[in-house]
Amino acid sequence: MYGYFGSMKTRPGHREEVVAVLLRASEQVKAAGCHLYVVGVADEDDQTIWVHEVWDSKEHHDASLQNPETRAAIGAAMPLLTGEFTSQEFSVVGGLGVP
Amino acid sequence: MYGYFGSMKTRPGHREEVVAVLLRASEQVKAAGCHLYVVGVADEDDQTIWVHEVWDSKEHHDASLQNPETRAAIGAAMPLLTGEFTSQEFSVVGGLGVP
Repeated sequence: MYGYFGSMKTRPGHREEVVAVLLRASEQVKAAGCHLYVVGVADEDDQTIWVHEVWDSKEHHDASLQNPETRAAIGAAMPLLTGEFTSQEFSVVGGLGVP
Repeated sequence: MYGYFGSMKTRPGHREEVVAVLLRASEQVKAAGCHLYVVGVADEDDQTIWVHEVWDSKEHHDASLQNPETRAAIGAAMPLLTGEFTSQEFSVVGGLGVP
């Protein structure tokens, strides 16, 4: 399985709005091969959002980016972001909460 | 909820052994307030392990470190690690796979 952990930074005052977009998106990705889509926020500032995802494969993840719902979510979030991202990919072996 | 994402580096040739220790540990943390304990490995090298955890609270996480089973797992893994760690804490808001 494919694992992804990354962050995005929102423009001041827009973090809650982007979190809401991501939470709505997380309800739609299961059918596309997503097992975990965890949304979190940094405690040190009020602009950073952390996301952790586990997918059947990187191909499933990449293909999902073409879904109309996902494209709409990205379109809604992008204007609210500063453009600063971090990302870390890895191979999921197992554990609690992993199918 | 409390989120943690971190890495550890194993001594050459010992990654599978440490992964096995972590997977066994992941079976025992649920009762201590852990919801997700995802174990992964880096694709870029054969020494790095990634762990993502979601707990009811940081207090639940910290208290779990005193459990005899957890202390035994840490004791088993430590000699196999180089001592290089990374860690990122955050507050989990929700998402797929989060209770």
